[in-house]
Amino acid sequence: MAKTVVALDCMGGDYAPEEPVKGAVEALREKDNVFIKLVGQTKLIEDELKKYGDIEKYSDLYEIIDAPDVIDMAEPPVTAIREKTESSLVKCLYAVRHGEADGMVSAGSSGAVLVGGHLVIGRLKGVQRPPFAPLLPTAKKKPVLLLDAGANVDVRASMLLQFAQIGTVYMENILGFENPKVGLVSVGTEEEKGNALTKEAFPMFKEAKGINFVGNIEARDIPEGKVDIAVCDAFVGNAILKTYEGVGAMILNTVIDTLKTNLKTKIGALLIKKQFKKSMKAFDIKEYGGAPLLGLKGLLMKTHGNSKAVEIKNSIFQCIDYNELDLNNKIKERLNLND
Amino acid sequence: MAKTVVALDCMGGDYAPEEPVKGAVEALREKDNVFIKLVGQTKLIEDELKKYGDIEKYSDLYEIIDAPDVIDMAEPPVTAIREKTESSLVKCLYAVRHGEADGMVSAGSSGAVLVGGHLVIGRLKGVQRPPFAPLLPTAKKKPVLLLDAGANVDVRASMLLQFAQIGTVYMENILGFENPKVGLVSVGTEEEKGNALTKEAFPMFKEAKGINFVGNIEARDIPEGKVDIAVCDAFVGNAILKTYEGVGAMILNTVIDTLKTNLKTKIGALLIKKQFKKSMKAFDIKEYGGAPLLGLKGLLMKTHGNSKAVEIKNSIFQCIDYNELDLNNKIKERLNLND
Repeated sequence: MAKTVVALDCMGGDYAPEEPVKGAVEALREKDNVFIKLVGQTKLIEDELKKYGDIEKYSDLYEIIDAPDVIDMAEPPVTAIREKTESSLVKCLYAVRHGEADGMVSAGSSGAVLVGGHLVIGRLKGVQRPPFAPLLPTAKKKPVLLLDAGANVDVRASMLLQFAQIGTVYMENILGFENPKVGLVSVGTEEEKGNALTKEAFPMFKEAKGINFVGNIEARDIPEGKVDIAVCDAFVGNAILKTYEGVGAMILNTVIDTLKTNLKTKIGALLIKKQFKKSMKAFDIKEYGGAPLLGLKGLLMKTHGNSKAVEIKNSIFQCIDYNELDLNNKIKERLNLND
Repeated sequence: MAKTVVALDCMGGDYAPEEPVKGAVEALREKDNVFIKLVGQTKLIEDELKKYGDIEKYSDLYEIIDAPDVIDMAEPPVTAIREKTESSLVKCLYAVRHGEADGMVSAGSSGAVLVGGHLVIGRLKGVQRPPFAPLLPTAKKKPVLLLDAGANVDVRASMLLQFAQIGTVYMENILGFENPKVGLVSVGTEEEKGNALTKEAFPMFKEAKGINFVGNIEARDIPEGKVDIAVCDAFVGNAILKTYEGVGAMILNTVIDTLKTNLKTKIGALLIKKQFKKSMKAFDIKEYGGAPLLGLKGLLMKTHGNSKAVEIKNSIFQCIDYNELDLNNKIKERLNLND
């Protein structure tokens, strides 16, 4: 099988270029079925690569693509994508669009990465709206896929159904879920509960082929892990995603501050530290890599702004799986089931 | 000043009638400007009252209203409200509607309480849609009012503006906030971000009188405490509220389980216990009582299903403040500012 080609934005994120380059090197050490295009300022990438004594072993498995432009975090995404054509992000996007890469990974600003995915890479035939699909941790120690959590709001019911189908293909193939449970996010679990959009979508979900629809869910059911895939429009998905992150940070920061209060709590902290770290690891979804923008001509993985090498590496692995499992065709097939 | 009359649903919630009756007794002990109608099964209420040796002192400050019917949690709300006319909830609702009570408190099923508020009590003149407005804890140790978090989805932009105005009156008067900051929940902070609804609402909020509008917010800004009032439609509000509760429970349960893992962590738990409880108290919003359904002819306070006496008592106090501060008129005045 041909190697999967991944374009890696080496300049995006808080720890660029160190962590993206490190993630690439770690990916090369673990897999031989990948070719990585390291996109960014050549000199900086070269300096990073020099840190790895074994890098010469992999010289046939990567190349550097020079991208001198830098996108400022404050730049409006659409302007950045249109004008900074020599930036690492835009060069990655065009690499996928032109078929020079099968997928791409970026820890750059969410706005620019998602807008760029929509504007530059282009949709798979038949996909109405490519959904952004982060994984969220649950109390059941298995993740749930939330889609759409992107920036394209105001959708139609048929788009929600596509999100469910695309999400199902992703969870089955990339995460290995059998018959993943799909829930439609609403204000109550009864069929008649919801807004105009979800009430229109509900019967379509019930009839649809290729999804295991379990009915309406409330947002509370997501952290409780009652479903594997939670479907909603991007406005609601964004609210859920941001509340998840915000409430999680609020509580964890408070717990950590509490442990630092005085000598007694500090000793207590030492005693629980090991177990506490182990428990919190269950909430850490970095082992899956970043979050995909699905339904494009190639996979776009958006990792967190504060991504470390492990998240970059795992995102590269997702690109490999996505390509080798031919997910583009599997998605197309699934969407056509209802035709 | 005339005493505020509060109708208390003594049969609603997981700990009825014990905790509602206890909450009433505690309210009577602390305030003399209230008259409480204890609504429920007379025999059960009498048995509870007998537990309090000092209850005779307050015999002029309460009465029992017999309500033999019981609403089943599984009953569809609208049916329950229409058919169980002799239930404690419906009798409370009609007491407010007929001006026999200034406000009411119930820990009964959310669906029935909110639907009942809309169907039976009736809206204040000029209020398009009465919003359900829970307080949420924040990292800044002060609460934020989220509205609408009820069940009436599919709103118009003018309704969102009313939510902001009504919420402002509530936070100024009941919570004592000066010039509370209003944020419009969206998918980004820039003015142009949002769905059709929030894009229409934004300029209206900017122009409006009687609110301190600080712009669009992301859901993450709510737990971070960046605003005092977060405005959204009820579908989004419900998603935020339920995610808040679900993620909070998920993390806290994990932390608590962690502390119980082994002897070492149990000793650690003992050392941090006092401080941990103190820190977690900051997230406890029961001191404010339940959540109001605002914009009705009288105040309806919905407390949690698992409410204890303290939440009932504080909800009764909110009814007193609401009445004595003449909030109905203050809300009407605020809504008319833009006319």
